[in-house]
Amino acid sequence: MHSKMIKKGVIINILGFLLVIESVFMLISTLVSLFYQEGDTKGLFLTTLITLASGAGLFLATRKTDKNISKREGYIIVSLVWVVLSFFGSLPFIFTNSITVYSDAFFETISGFTTTGSSILNDIESLPHGILFWRSITQWMGGMGIIVLSIAILPVLGIGGMQLFVAEVPGPAPDKLHPRIRETAIRLWGIYLGFTLVETILLWIGGMTFFDAICHSFTTMATGGYSTKQASIAYWSSPFIQYVIIIFMFLAGTNFTLSYLGLHLKFKKVFMDEEFRWYLGFVILFSAFIAGSLIIFHGKEFELSVRESLFQVVSIITTTGYVTADYLSWTPFLTFIIFILMFFGGSTGSTGGGIKIMRIVIVIKNGYYELRRLIHPNAVIPLKYKSHVVSSQILSNILAFFSMYILIFGVSVIIMSTMEPTLDSAFGAVATTLGNIGPGLGTVGPMDNFYHLPAFGKWFLSFLMLIGRLELFTVLVLFTPSFWKQ
Amino acid sequence: MHSKMIKKGVIINILGFLLVIESVFMLISTLVSLFYQEGDTKGLFLTTLITLASGAGLFLATRKTDKNISKREGYIIVSLVWVVLSFFGSLPFIFTNSITVYSDAFFETISGFTTTGSSILNDIESLPHGILFWRSITQWMGGMGIIVLSIAILPVLGIGGMQLFVAEVPGPAPDKLHPRIRETAIRLWGIYLGFTLVETILLWIGGMTFFDAICHSFTTMATGGYSTKQASIAYWSSPFIQYVIIIFMFLAGTNFTLSYLGLHLKFKKVFMDEEFRWYLGFVILFSAFIAGSLIIFHGKEFELSVRESLFQVVSIITTTGYVTADYLSWTPFLTFIIFILMFFGGSTGSTGGGIKIMRIVIVIKNGYYELRRLIHPNAVIPLKYKSHVVSSQILSNILAFFSMYILIFGVSVIIMSTMEPTLDSAFGAVATTLGNIGPGLGTVGPMDNFYHLPAFGKWFLSFLMLIGRLELFTVLVLFTPSFWKQ
Repeated sequence: MHSKMIKKGVIINILGFLLVIESVFMLISTLVSLFYQEGDTKGLFLTTLITLASGAGLFLATRKTDKNISKREGYIIVSLVWVVLSFFGSLPFIFTNSITVYSDAFFETISGFTTTGSSILNDIESLPHGILFWRSITQWMGGMGIIVLSIAILPVLGIGGMQLFVAEVPGPAPDKLHPRIRETAIRLWGIYLGFTLVETILLWIGGMTFFDAICHSFTTMATGGYSTKQASIAYWSSPFIQYVIIIFMFLAGTNFTLSYLGLHLKFKKVFMDEEFRWYLGFVILFSAFIAGSLIIFHGKEFELSVRESLFQVVSIITTTGYVTADYLSWTPFLTFIIFILMFFGGSTGSTGGGIKIMRIVIVIKNGYYELRRLIHPNAVIPLKYKSHVVSSQILSNILAFFSMYILIFGVSVIIMSTMEPTLDSAFGAVATTLGNIGPGLGTVGPMDNFYHLPAFGKWFLSFLMLIGRLELFTVLVLFTPSFWKQ
Repeated sequence: MHSKMIKKGVIINILGFLLVIESVFMLISTLVSLFYQEGDTKGLFLTTLITLASGAGLFLATRKTDKNISKREGYIIVSLVWVVLSFFGSLPFIFTNSITVYSDAFFETISGFTTTGSSILNDIESLPHGILFWRSITQWMGGMGIIVLSIAILPVLGIGGMQLFVAEVPGPAPDKLHPRIRETAIRLWGIYLGFTLVETILLWIGGMTFFDAICHSFTTMATGGYSTKQASIAYWSSPFIQYVIIIFMFLAGTNFTLSYLGLHLKFKKVFMDEEFRWYLGFVILFSAFIAGSLIIFHGKEFELSVRESLFQVVSIITTTGYVTADYLSWTPFLTFIIFILMFFGGSTGSTGGGIKIMRIVIVIKNGYYELRRLIHPNAVIPLKYKSHVVSSQILSNILAFFSMYILIFGVSVIIMSTMEPTLDSAFGAVATTLGNIGPGLGTVGPMDNFYHLPAFGKWFLSFLMLIGRLELFTVLVLFTPSFWKQ
């Protein structure tokens, strides 16, 4: 760890490599724009060249550097990647005049890469197809990044209690983590890609254009939530489309290693997984409660109530952020349930953000165990999760994460309340960006967007998206003096 | 602990004893009512007799019981005391027709005994003096109860991280806890009584009637916040009165053992106390920020801004709940700062409620230490508080308390949002009752009260006051099955 100097070479090398990959996705977007001929090709192609040149230049200039990285470089790389890719990724919006103010373009891009989905766009349909494709694919890339980050990199950095489940990532040898990060990543990316393809086909069959189908598949699997329509999924009234999206949002919020088990027909293992059971339980519980209330208090029809509640609950709990109903028009307690769900987040090892089901469950369990410890002060009552004892170190990490999340939330709401007309809006803006969801409450509700915020507010929320996406500690550790001590 | 049967005899014996004490305070209120001759004497005297008879009966019937209590009886007694005393304490309101609905009377009384100060009264000045005196003295009794509870009883029950400071409670031997609970309690009650007398005299000098002066001293020292006026302290425009109350609220929110040291002129020890420094720091920081904003954004005069901000900040952070300015009329971010302060609470060993400064500080510190632990994964980095290492057991208790508090807050807001028109109101009602403060936000703001809530809402908020006052675990432990296992 404390290996003297920070190796700038390897950091630059990896960033350069990832910029080259980004330029490949930009090139694909350029090809899409070429097909539609809407005047955005030049801007996209220019960005592709700039990004490729920068990436290749940085990569080649540092190709002879020492490639062994310590944890310290790991933290820096992970935090920088999202920022640097967002910087280059924002250029297409600027070069095509799709977004004219830089803080807006950066907000829109980092909201893509962090798979948040909060937008500043007032008229999404007016954008050319190439740009819409690029906007969607930033989320898909972000999702790929998160899979490799949460399953392979963060556990090595000791972040986020992910250690808990590392031992259970499947590999060729059952229930053991495959030692090489690359193969694990490729295996899970295979699932990610496969789900994206299947969803695209289903949405296409359901009545979306092929373009809309693939864009929405990108943003579903990333739990991103960017839509090609201003009205989000509410644009399509087809129940089939909505149910397809519900299912794939649910899958995207599930630990991808469980999907791997599921695809190998090990359903019993999937249903025995403690986090999955809670995840499924929360979805059913909250959807049933909201559906019942919609039927009783809003007089809505049964199937529509079930669909609307299921869609909104799955969309928020997985931190996707698609919308088919304006939850702000519901009675306050239903709106508040949606707000509470913003703190849940998907499962560990999924593309979802937020606190995550695993941590919520352990925090609740620990509260209950603390009561039992009071009754039996001399007994050692260890907390169990997935039938394993949770070490005090991991427990302390999880509790620290939870309390840190709440503290950051509180401080951030103070900051945002200087810019928002109501507390609801400030609460919503912070909860939805810190949790990488998308829509919030009040002026940033599901029928509105973040355009009206001052530039400072957009930079601040961009920062929240970043730290929320990288499990807080990854970024915050960079702000401690002892990190930088030689 | 697991000593077979729960000893009902000793529980009843102690409750009986405390009811007799309650009846003494009722008798004093009866004498006050006799002086003012406003028709409430009969009701008060009747309650005195009922309470005395019940208390004496229960006490005498169980006088031969085994007096050794285990922790289990301790939890039951502590939780029951506040409920039983509130039941008898609500009778004067009913018997004098001051409050006609029972759920209202119980709410008003438990809000007194828990030193919360949330009220359902729409016209406080119309009440007879005897009843107003009783209403104020319920808070003063509650404050006495909390001093002995937090300093002598809860540490024995293993609740609330109070163990941290037990070793520092002063006694005849400097810095060592006097072994006998009774003497510690009497010493601190002496300070409580002394402060009450001094404040009464100062408020009287400042222009209050003697009656108002003593009633407000009762509710200041208890951090209760009941006023004899509908407008609360805003009734008196005298800056002197307001400054006196600010100082005594601050003292009431300070650890009483520090006041003991201060009275023995050990000021250096007081200012070296870590919790006190944070407490003072938070008060100065938030007051300065609000005062500056009132000057800049509201164009208020300097002294008035300082006084209004200081008063509101000290009133909320100490969980007193007096009001001299409508903080809901401030810009949203100032209102939100007040809301955030509702989660701070006073110091440990004070009469304040809420999470408490000590826990807030340790939660923040632990977040920062977790970052350092990530950088130095092999180093043992223990958390220090007041120059002592905080054991992992106490740390886990504090983190469990914090997360439990947040979870209970979230669930309670869902419940309250079924009864409140806006989320602000639901947030405010829960934060202010769980934190034992008084006024909330929205429809339960500083210029309003809790009258409009349905009965269920009042019972529910009464429950929140109780668990908030008794540091959550004391009450919640009674709801675990293993508590009741033989």
